[in-house]
Amino acid sequence: MTHEPVRLAMVGGGGGAFIGAIHRAACVLDGRFRLVAGAFSSDPAHSRQFAGEIGLDPQRGYASASEMFAAEAARPDGARAVAVTTPNHLHREQIVAAADAGFAIFAEKPLTVTMADARSIAEAVASKAVPFVLAHAYAGYPMVAQAKQLVQSGILGEIRRVDAAYLQGWLTDPIEREGQKQAAWRTDPAKSGGGASGDIATHAHHMMEHVSGLQVARVSARLATLVAGRLNDDDVSLLAEMSNGAAATLTVSQVAVGRANGLTLNVYGDKAGLEWRQEEPDTLWLRPHNAPEQRWIAGADKAYLDADVRSLCRTPSGHPMGFIEAFGNLYRAFADQIDGHASGIYAPGIDEGMRGMAFLDAISLSSAQQGQWTKIE
Amino acid sequence: MTHEPVRLAMVGGGGGAFIGAIHRAACVLDGRFRLVAGAFSSDPAHSRQFAGEIGLDPQRGYASASEMFAAEAARPDGARAVAVTTPNHLHREQIVAAADAGFAIFAEKPLTVTMADARSIAEAVASKAVPFVLAHAYAGYPMVAQAKQLVQSGILGEIRRVDAAYLQGWLTDPIEREGQKQAAWRTDPAKSGGGASGDIATHAHHMMEHVSGLQVARVSARLATLVAGRLNDDDVSLLAEMSNGAAATLTVSQVAVGRANGLTLNVYGDKAGLEWRQEEPDTLWLRPHNAPEQRWIAGADKAYLDADVRSLCRTPSGHPMGFIEAFGNLYRAFADQIDGHASGIYAPGIDEGMRGMAFLDAISLSSAQQGQWTKIE
Amino acid sequence: MTHEPVRLAMVGGGGGAFIGAIHRAACVLDGRFRLVAGAFSSDPAHSRQFAGEIGLDPQRGYASASEMFAAEAARPDGARAVAVTTPNHLHREQIVAAADAGFAIFAEKPLTVTMADARSIAEAVASKAVPFVLAHAYAGYPMVAQAKQLVQSGILGEIRRVDAAYLQGWLTDPIEREGQKQAAWRTDPAKSGGGASGDIATHAHHMMEHVSGLQVARVSARLATLVAGRLNDDDVSLLAEMSNGAAATLTVSQVAVGRANGLTLNVYGDKAGLEWRQEEPDTLWLRPHNAPEQRWIAGADKAYLDADVRSLCRTPSGHPMGFIEAFGNLYRAFADQIDGHASGIYAPGIDEGMRGMAFLDAISLSSAQQGQWTKIE
Amino acid sequence: MTHEPVRLAMVGGGGGAFIGAIHRAACVLDGRFRLVAGAFSSDPAHSRQFAGEIGLDPQRGYASASEMFAAEAARPDGARAVAVTTPNHLHREQIVAAADAGFAIFAEKPLTVTMADARSIAEAVASKAVPFVLAHAYAGYPMVAQAKQLVQSGILGEIRRVDAAYLQGWLTDPIEREGQKQAAWRTDPAKSGGGASGDIATHAHHMMEHVSGLQVARVSARLATLVAGRLNDDDVSLLAEMSNGAAATLTVSQVAVGRANGLTLNVYGDKAGLEWRQEEPDTLWLRPHNAPEQRWIAGADKAYLDADVRSLCRTPSGHPMGFIEAFGNLYRAFADQIDGHASGIYAPGIDEGMRGMAFLDAISLSSAQQGQWTKIE
Repeated sequence: MTHEPVRLAMVGGGGGAFIGAIHRAACVLDGRFRLVAGAFSSDPAHSRQFAGEIGLDPQRGYASASEMFAAEAARPDGARAVAVTTPNHLHREQIVAAADAGFAIFAEKPLTVTMADARSIAEAVASKAVPFVLAHAYAGYPMVAQAKQLVQSGILGEIRRVDAAYLQGWLTDPIEREGQKQAAWRTDPAKSGGGASGDIATHAHHMMEHVSGLQVARVSARLATLVAGRLNDDDVSLLAEMSNGAAATLTVSQVAVGRANGLTLNVYGDKAGLEWRQEEPDTLWLRPHNAPEQRWIAGADKAYLDADVRSLCRTPSGHPMGFIEAFGNLYRAFADQIDGHASGIYAPGIDEGMRGMAFLDAISLSSAQQGQWTKIE
Repeated sequence: MTHEPVRLAMVGGGGGAFIGAIHRAACVLDGRFRLVAGAFSSDPAHSRQFAGEIGLDPQRGYASASEMFAAEAARPDGARAVAVTTPNHLHREQIVAAADAGFAIFAEKPLTVTMADARSIAEAVASKAVPFVLAHAYAGYPMVAQAKQLVQSGILGEIRRVDAAYLQGWLTDPIEREGQKQAAWRTDPAKSGGGASGDIATHAHHMMEHVSGLQVARVSARLATLVAGRLNDDDVSLLAEMSNGAAATLTVSQVAVGRANGLTLNVYGDKAGLEWRQEEPDTLWLRPHNAPEQRWIAGADKAYLDADVRSLCRTPSGHPMGFIEAFGNLYRAFADQIDGHASGIYAPGIDEGMRGMAFLDAISLSSAQQGQWTKIE
Repeated sequence: MTHEPVRLAMVGGGGGAFIGAIHRAACVLDGRFRLVAGAFSSDPAHSRQFAGEIGLDPQRGYASASEMFAAEAARPDGARAVAVTTPNHLHREQIVAAADAGFAIFAEKPLTVTMADARSIAEAVASKAVPFVLAHAYAGYPMVAQAKQLVQSGILGEIRRVDAAYLQGWLTDPIEREGQKQAAWRTDPAKSGGGASGDIATHAHHMMEHVSGLQVARVSARLATLVAGRLNDDDVSLLAEMSNGAAATLTVSQVAVGRANGLTLNVYGDKAGLEWRQEEPDTLWLRPHNAPEQRWIAGADKAYLDADVRSLCRTPSGHPMGFIEAFGNLYRAFADQIDGHASGIYAPGIDEGMRGMAFLDAISLSSAQQGQWTKIE
Repeated sequence: MTHEPVRLAMVGGGGGAFIGAIHRAACVLDGRFRLVAGAFSSDPAHSRQFAGEIGLDPQRGYASASEMFAAEAARPDGARAVAVTTPNHLHREQIVAAADAGFAIFAEKPLTVTMADARSIAEAVASKAVPFVLAHAYAGYPMVAQAKQLVQSGILGEIRRVDAAYLQGWLTDPIEREGQKQAAWRTDPAKSGGGASGDIATHAHHMMEHVSGLQVARVSARLATLVAGRLNDDDVSLLAEMSNGAAATLTVSQVAVGRANGLTLNVYGDKAGLEWRQEEPDTLWLRPHNAPEQRWIAGADKAYLDADVRSLCRTPSGHPMGFIEAFGNLYRAFADQIDGHASGIYAPGIDEGMRGMAFLDAISLSSAQQGQWTKIE
């Protein structure tokens, strides 16, 4: 059986965009996708030029998503899937158009800027029944899958406490005023819909729910802007309660000077606890009560890992796997969805996107009301 | 000049009490104290017997603090300082009596159980002008002193965020019902005045203020009892604001299964951040913006440390210093106070004790009012 | 300018071969290569089937390297580069054939099994002047490049000591007798030319020379077989002297139970030392004398890194880069060589391969002579 | 029963001597010793003055060990035990005199400078049957005791490999020429009998034998002097073979710039391996084959530790124990020996001292003969 790669298009990701390059590397790791087209820039010449630079037919560098969907859908060798890697405020229009054109969709997070837009997206994706993956890439790490499996196995017992943090320091200075592109749109409320909250708190929120198997039910939050003059929040602290009554906390900052990308998750049960740290992703700590701590490590050769977890490992243990491989595991799940075979590989979808939007609404509301405890519907 | 050790008495600390043995080891590390007497038990025979077991004259094993203060004050070779190591609800009476008898006082934390009792203690200590040290022992670690010095030096810039955590797992099961003594009084509100809050949150609160040089100005707290049937809180989460407006969080638990004694402190400025973790106490992380992280290590030989910090180091770098030595540094400061020479060694005193009591009051009140933001007076 | 990917063929790497999948993922990370053909198996049907499974035209799955070189060379869209991923004893014939056919060559290490074979390879590559990269993949990590740069900068001063280790535990049991394929050929002297020595000691040797900028001049070695009945060495210890007289050690084992892939390198100068550990590859420790330790971290955003090092980083700091990305950096250098533009990206070549073979000869000889000090010519 | 502390005298340790202060702190940790006298200096006035400064009767500050032994033996309240903390070349005379005077002896390591002197010491101690403890203090750490217990339990299986390292950087510069006292005698062959070899390699050798339960049977060593003009070795590398045939290595340096006191030990069996690192002494790693790594931590409360190990812990887990407490555990064993009750607490003695001397002889001989394999008798 020949395994023809899925032909993929990209919206955004031109020029120096960090995340576009990640998508391009991640999608080809398993030979399951081939990038064939892109709406890389609203300037037609730029888009064509960039297409050529990355080895595509320059004619398939388009100036808009809608133009691309129409043109590619009309080609026998046209793209049938799309990666949406634009700033948040553009997601709704592009995703809805992609769904209408029948494309399978891999979209950047958060889903979009407003709950109303999110509902439009959800309706479009549901009505067209297209595959949809949301890029909460940290869920693609093998040891995150193992963490979830350990919770499900019951080895932690009843969960009592969930603590997450996501600490970055790159916005310590107001670099958005110096023309740093990554910073500029993320700190512009119109484009991002939220600063640290939308950009990274949603990742942490997703991890809390994904690994624990619980929902964040209520929050008491404080969104802060710690750099004077910044337009968006850059720092978020919150207390929460999980759906089973467990206590929870989440601490998020993009001005935690000296921190790179410190996403960490601790889940404490009444029998054992676990800890995962994104910057050391191949390691998972399991700490049973009154017993030595256990350090589990990732690797295709590690028989003590769950079989599904091993299948997410591209290397034997001790050969580090990184962010791009985690991302690639979401693309593998995406390919499986497109191919229509149930793979057992988890990927976040519309439901997770809607949960994230509800979370953003709730923390904004709580923060505006002096931390009043607020339900996430 | 001969340096005669200060003659020390102890209240509490008999039998298997963990903290009594720590005091006895810590106070002699520098040869500045000699334990000569103790009110180790309310049973006269037990107290005498225990005195003998640890090498004291059995006749100086007393059945009460007041009896001991009277008897020792009357001896030419009597104790002139006292370590109060009893459960919290006994502190007020014993400390006031010690002050009245003119003893220098080294007292366990928290100061006591109620704010009214705390004021009585403060008045007694002030009116008698006796030396007083409160056993927030973590402040005795050399690298905590270095952390404070770095903040004062301005290298961190303006402080924006302070995150502390104190995570233990030893109360994961309801061991107080199985006769575990350490657990029994700490989980009894009448004796402790607060569970995880009084026992360990106060330590973390002290560290936040001591190192940052700021005060915790306001809190929004949740005290929880995560083990069914327990009488005291065993889990505390709070958002806070420092006196300069910096954001802060504190996460405390004694049911964080698998954690031993995880006190950690992060202070983020607008130029650099620092991190200290009690379980690796000889290490201090300094993280300047856009520069390699720096790992500072303790040691009498480390010329890059502040001179006062080096003086707190009893070993060259790489020869680990532990909890007992940190404790011993508070005793060194205590000896210096008794000897009447200004040493530059920090030790917490009445003011820190009062701050801790106000903190406990504020978090209890906030928690009772659904996390309402509450000032610490 | 359109940037057409280089068309790549592969020898070996069919079925479950670990390293073949690594090559396939690594070569496409930057869009610089497209795999178009492979001699995946000596069974024609298997090779065609496997080609199809990974998305190639099944007709371009060949049964031998020579057949493939002939067929591809004759196609206008034929492969012009080849990845040789077979067991060591097959390298000579395949590499010489590839060179003769004018293919650019990316070969697995060690270069081959005997010094005579190595010379044949060197001559063929030199006479045809084809690009050649040897897969000492660890040199592709950004922080290894940074380590080399720091040595060159002089910040370490004169190098006094070099310590390397490469510790694995996967051959703790005699799994080669249970049909484990990876183990079977590596423990067969006829196919590997050396066990732990050829498989991993050569990696460590390369790192010692590459980072220090010195050569390993003399060795006193002991090769051991610690699992009874095994045919090859599985454990290597050696003392060495670098070309400037610095002391050196290398410790290698594949029966270091519990170890995954513990390649570490320490270089000590008279002013500073550095440490790099493969299992935490984004971190580099620099330890100046009498100053805090420095932890340097990888990332495209880290301005304190050398510009060439940043260019090797595909992610911002804190987004871990792994083994496949390191491998991908060698492929990037390979593409640059093929494209004929000097990129400044290091890749090991024939010289490094010859050094490795001389090293293997010297340690075998020394070991056979009771550790007699032996020069590496 | 009253537990009267043993009256202890000290030889050496006056003024700024690092190790004297360690002994004074360590011996009193459990209230088992009271320092009453010392031969702190050969200058009578200095010795008396120093005695007074540390709280002793100045008249019991003596100018020589022999004078002190005579005077103290004649007092009803005289010292009956002695800590010998002088440079190595003085040990023989002082220890023999102490034994002759019937003192229990706690001596610094290495035992002495020459094998002949060592034999004199051994004979004197044996003929007088006095308690004798040698200060290989690292053996006093609880987790070293646990490591030994794990080996004895058989959980590691047959031991195949033992790797030790002891890396310091404090002699990176020739500070002995600048009057640094600690450095001056240690780098003087007449006083130390060996540099890095005598000072720290002996510690590592002791650990290798103590934990593994095996002897280092043969060595191939290189002693080097990496700082020009230094009189003693400052760097030692060696290959070894244990008495059961296991491979072993030891790497020692005092010019490993940036290293503080990096003593590490790895023992690999055919079923599991263990690792202990002195700079993180409360942690012990156990790595069973094909299972998660286990991190064991010290603490009086850790029920999974051996009961004897728990008894060496003065604090609950997470309250770090340091070098002084490890040292104190040897003093505890010393007190038990003096009191004549078998305690089960290990302390190194004459046999270990003789093993260390034989090791030093063997590595010197091997190094002088180009690393010829040399038996340790």
